[in-house]
Amino acid sequence: MWKVGIIGATGYTGLTLILLLKTHPYIKINLLTSNTYKGKKISEVFPLLNGIMDEVLVPTDENHKGKCDVYFLCLPHGKSMESAEKLYDGRSIIIDLSADFRFENIELYEKTYTKHLARHLVPASVFGLPELYRDEIKTKKLIGNPGCYPTSSILGIYPLVKNRLIDGNIFIDSKSGVSGAGREAKLGSLFCEVSEGFRPYNIGVHRHEPEIQKEINKYQDIKIRFVPHLLPMNRGILTTIYGKLKEPLKTENAYELYKETYKDEPFIRILNPNTYPDTRFVRFSNYCDIGFKMFDDGSFVVVSAIDNLIKGASGQAVQNMNIALDIDEKTSLTGLPQYP
Amino acid sequence: MWKVGIIGATGYTGLTLILLLKTHPYIKINLLTSNTYKGKKISEVFPLLNGIMDEVLVPTDENHKGKCDVYFLCLPHGKSMESAEKLYDGRSIIIDLSADFRFENIELYEKTYTKHLARHLVPASVFGLPELYRDEIKTKKLIGNPGCYPTSSILGIYPLVKNRLIDGNIFIDSKSGVSGAGREAKLGSLFCEVSEGFRPYNIGVHRHEPEIQKEINKYQDIKIRFVPHLLPMNRGILTTIYGKLKEPLKTENAYELYKETYKDEPFIRILNPNTYPDTRFVRFSNYCDIGFKMFDDGSFVVVSAIDNLIKGASGQAVQNMNIALDIDEKTSLTGLPQYP
Amino acid sequence: MWKVGIIGATGYTGLTLILLLKTHPYIKINLLTSNTYKGKKISEVFPLLNGIMDEVLVPTDENHKGKCDVYFLCLPHGKSMESAEKLYDGRSIIIDLSADFRFENIELYEKTYTKHLARHLVPASVFGLPELYRDEIKTKKLIGNPGCYPTSSILGIYPLVKNRLIDGNIFIDSKSGVSGAGREAKLGSLFCEVSEGFRPYNIGVHRHEPEIQKEINKYQDIKIRFVPHLLPMNRGILTTIYGKLKEPLKTENAYELYKETYKDEPFIRILNPNTYPDTRFVRFSNYCDIGFKMFDDGSFVVVSAIDNLIKGASGQAVQNMNIALDIDEKTSLTGLPQYP
Amino acid sequence: MWKVGIIGATGYTGLTLILLLKTHPYIKINLLTSNTYKGKKISEVFPLLNGIMDEVLVPTDENHKGKCDVYFLCLPHGKSMESAEKLYDGRSIIIDLSADFRFENIELYEKTYTKHLARHLVPASVFGLPELYRDEIKTKKLIGNPGCYPTSSILGIYPLVKNRLIDGNIFIDSKSGVSGAGREAKLGSLFCEVSEGFRPYNIGVHRHEPEIQKEINKYQDIKIRFVPHLLPMNRGILTTIYGKLKEPLKTENAYELYKETYKDEPFIRILNPNTYPDTRFVRFSNYCDIGFKMFDDGSFVVVSAIDNLIKGASGQAVQNMNIALDIDEKTSLTGLPQYP
Repeated sequence: MWKVGIIGATGYTGLTLILLLKTHPYIKINLLTSNTYKGKKISEVFPLLNGIMDEVLVPTDENHKGKCDVYFLCLPHGKSMESAEKLYDGRSIIIDLSADFRFENIELYEKTYTKHLARHLVPASVFGLPELYRDEIKTKKLIGNPGCYPTSSILGIYPLVKNRLIDGNIFIDSKSGVSGAGREAKLGSLFCEVSEGFRPYNIGVHRHEPEIQKEINKYQDIKIRFVPHLLPMNRGILTTIYGKLKEPLKTENAYELYKETYKDEPFIRILNPNTYPDTRFVRFSNYCDIGFKMFDDGSFVVVSAIDNLIKGASGQAVQNMNIALDIDEKTSLTGLPQYP
Repeated sequence: MWKVGIIGATGYTGLTLILLLKTHPYIKINLLTSNTYKGKKISEVFPLLNGIMDEVLVPTDENHKGKCDVYFLCLPHGKSMESAEKLYDGRSIIIDLSADFRFENIELYEKTYTKHLARHLVPASVFGLPELYRDEIKTKKLIGNPGCYPTSSILGIYPLVKNRLIDGNIFIDSKSGVSGAGREAKLGSLFCEVSEGFRPYNIGVHRHEPEIQKEINKYQDIKIRFVPHLLPMNRGILTTIYGKLKEPLKTENAYELYKETYKDEPFIRILNPNTYPDTRFVRFSNYCDIGFKMFDDGSFVVVSAIDNLIKGASGQAVQNMNIALDIDEKTSLTGLPQYP
Repeated sequence: MWKVGIIGATGYTGLTLILLLKTHPYIKINLLTSNTYKGKKISEVFPLLNGIMDEVLVPTDENHKGKCDVYFLCLPHGKSMESAEKLYDGRSIIIDLSADFRFENIELYEKTYTKHLARHLVPASVFGLPELYRDEIKTKKLIGNPGCYPTSSILGIYPLVKNRLIDGNIFIDSKSGVSGAGREAKLGSLFCEVSEGFRPYNIGVHRHEPEIQKEINKYQDIKIRFVPHLLPMNRGILTTIYGKLKEPLKTENAYELYKETYKDEPFIRILNPNTYPDTRFVRFSNYCDIGFKMFDDGSFVVVSAIDNLIKGASGQAVQNMNIALDIDEKTSLTGLPQYP
Repeated sequence: MWKVGIIGATGYTGLTLILLLKTHPYIKINLLTSNTYKGKKISEVFPLLNGIMDEVLVPTDENHKGKCDVYFLCLPHGKSMESAEKLYDGRSIIIDLSADFRFENIELYEKTYTKHLARHLVPASVFGLPELYRDEIKTKKLIGNPGCYPTSSILGIYPLVKNRLIDGNIFIDSKSGVSGAGREAKLGSLFCEVSEGFRPYNIGVHRHEPEIQKEINKYQDIKIRFVPHLLPMNRGILTTIYGKLKEPLKTENAYELYKETYKDEPFIRILNPNTYPDTRFVRFSNYCDIGFKMFDDGSFVVVSAIDNLIKGASGQAVQNMNIALDIDEKTSLTGLPQYP
């Protein structure tokens, strides 16, 4: 049994990790931290855990080095790199759910976020998107778990950019459930400020744009325009991507291309032509569903859907852990989509 | 491996059974029926099952006798008894999710619903509430799975009536998510007719009132008044029960009484005094959470919460199946509550 | 034109007052205050007011005495009485939406809330429920606008207690939309902590219980038990009241009693027997809809529905203002219910 | 007082017309029709109208010619033209909320919908988008009220195409609340099939695409790709439009262009640069809010928001009626946006 610690366990990604790892056959959660709720039982913070997990939360700020084989950092950016700095020993695996280790280019990180306080660890890290970096994840001890928007965006467009099929810029219109904003008491996340409404935000200035851009630029020199929107629902991201191909492709051929690209991927489902993803059909699962429509003038629409807390955060983190531990990648991730 | 058939598989209880049984270690689903969608794959009806279960639906109206070891009937009342009549052979287990075999008293059934077409099977059946009838469930081949409102109501009040503590009548104020109305295209279940609103319905005339009443009357001769309400959410029932005790009880003593009554029950959680259930904390699980407040004049408030599709329907049906098959009652029912 | 000030204009009751008063023919809003947003335009706080009202917010803490003919205090309890103390001059009308002037009995107020800092003003105030205190409202300059739960509860039960028909205690099961919790960044009001869930809270200890209790005790010496619940929706309160009559009453006779009691009330609608209120049917209006069911053993169920922000707060405040100004009570309150 | 008839009054557009027209100073509703609910009071169909409007519904299929000065046709396409055929007399004003008179090109209509049964009336009709066709609306007796998606799309992009600024194709990503699907008992509109999910549908084949396309082509020969999505909320459409300009424009200059284009429009609000529309800020009002972001490579994002039942349907219909009757265009349309 590997020992696992969740640093910052009282947010939605922390809770989701607990729910996923509780039934993992090779894992024991032996550390849950929180500065805000230290001394309380986790089941007092999340009463749904009554009788399931009653461990007491210890302060995040204590020294936890060497206690665990795997650490999940569920902290805000900035705080995560401080924590990584303290915990990193080249032996235990650190999976950071913040943005702090998603950028191999430190200047780009600093331009987008803030001064990097653990620069020397960046070369030791890998961008934890298994579909693109599985081999490298196996060898690294520090994994920068991708953002939720980037996961859905990159997986959706990857087969096209990998094959350098795109001509000109693309628009990424992405819509996220409210849990993407975290479990903080913010005015903009109140029920009355979200329900029965829909809005875009941070057009052209969202921090996930550079994260998507840098991955795309590894294949094609095209510019993306990323437009996030807030959905009046709990979980799920649907991303609709617009652009033009150098040469028109039939929808059926695109289907073959996507199937081929992801043929060994356990969590990617390519939908039949003319059917499209619905966030409800991946909800509570680690799936990424992808559908598309190709037009005869080369215009294309690609649609991808994930559960932002699973494939977009904690599920992908567990997938990364499984890969890094060299066990079956699907362990504890076989939960089916759930609705209504 | 026991062979399982789901008769009427395209509603919410059918889908929930599929999701629960998919991972059951001793079960294989080998029959899914639907008249409406016959010939289609189940994954066409529920695209979330893409790549998970692609079986073809066969007509409900065909003869399915002898094909399975266990049949779940997810049909409307009236239709269920016809199906039971055809399938019953005294060997295979039939679990009926309709009301047709919930009443040992046929006259009461007929007064409440319609003419009973399989009267001779009624003595062979049992009211499938494991917490009250576990021993009998083990011996019967025809199980009348309780209604969702009755499950939450009876489990909430049972410790008080069993000990004959109640004086006078009680009021049961129950609130259900929309999935309780089923997956039929009805005006009253439309998003625009449900969301951003809340209403009672069928006050004093709901069909679940006699089902609750008959169980309570086995212990005390008191009258209930049942008032259902429709909640603008997908799943969950919260039931708030009001009445008066013969002798006042302290909340702490009530806590002991409830703990004692349900001490061997794997799916009942008695909440600490002064904490109360939330449907979110049982959502997607087979738990029934119970809390209460006792006043010094003998007035009491009991609150219970279940997921109407799990403990209120398909989860309880699987629990009954496990008991009837004499395997661990919790098999396939260890799914944790999920939120947000 | 009377000059109106809204003290604390950036919450939901403040916004609702603005929307109601904007079209009032005899009123001009000439003062909007906020400490948090001082210096900003109200349309920056509420962008829906773009081009409609662009006034700048001035600090709540400044001295605003003598500036207006009518002041609405949309402040937390405790703060309101401080503000009333500063503004009261026996000439301008002060309508307080907090609890500070709802209790004629100061001891009861202090037991329920906090030390009263403007005791000498209490005798000058009136409980602003027009259906019960219209005549007194005409003569007073300080009006304690009732709470949302009390408005729906008292209006629902009043015809029965006024005629001393009730035997024994009653249970008030009340369910409120989230806007009742105000526009503060609180964890418990987050979309992800409210949607897809339903729960009771503060059973037996909610501050609105004494407010309801004191009004009922003016007619009958009975005890109420008040149980509030939080609904996953924006606005609306539905209250279901349970109890027993001294003598059974037919539903039709109760209908006559209710119709007679409220025959001159412009905002109360008594529903036909066997039809019940839905919060959607009063949403955005000042109506209170009431329905009921009487049983032959004397048990009764009364159901009332209001929009908590209109009849439960700002609409009732405008109604009180109209009465106090001796103009048509319905002025600016003729907005129809709206759905979907 | 003009006499108004609503043909097909029991859907959401019919209800919204009733709510808007009830307070219109120059109008009297003297005809409400429904085949489904004929003989019932409108307040039985919509209990929110209790005591407000209790008129009895007469059959739609009767002959209503000559009874009214204005008819609103709230019927499905196909049925509307039959009704128009019967009612048209060149004197009374007919405003059709279906698609039957939105296309001046009958072939395009027939290709998109069905065989046209009132071809001779098409030349007498006008596309009822006041911002583009106000003068013509004044002179016509048959007005084809635009679709909800087209209203938001055309108003959003009009200033750019009118000035022939666009280079290449554009993508229109549009998201609608559920009321856009009407008040029919359809599986896809059920609460449990809509809430907590988000999906695109009919990509490239939605019937509103040609309606938008034909208007755009009056100014520029560019192709649009229209991608509708279904939002888990009642009302509101947000449309996000993507494309490229021939010459880059600064956001500030675009702001001037939009302000100038719509300078006399009472219902269009151009938002300040770097602020964006939210459907909540136009909800229940006839406003169309427009915001945008221009990039230095000529890429642009335009965002528009309307209430699909008001500016997207019944409000625009009343606006058209006011214009056609030569009264103040804003009459009965001054209702402010409402939230929460």
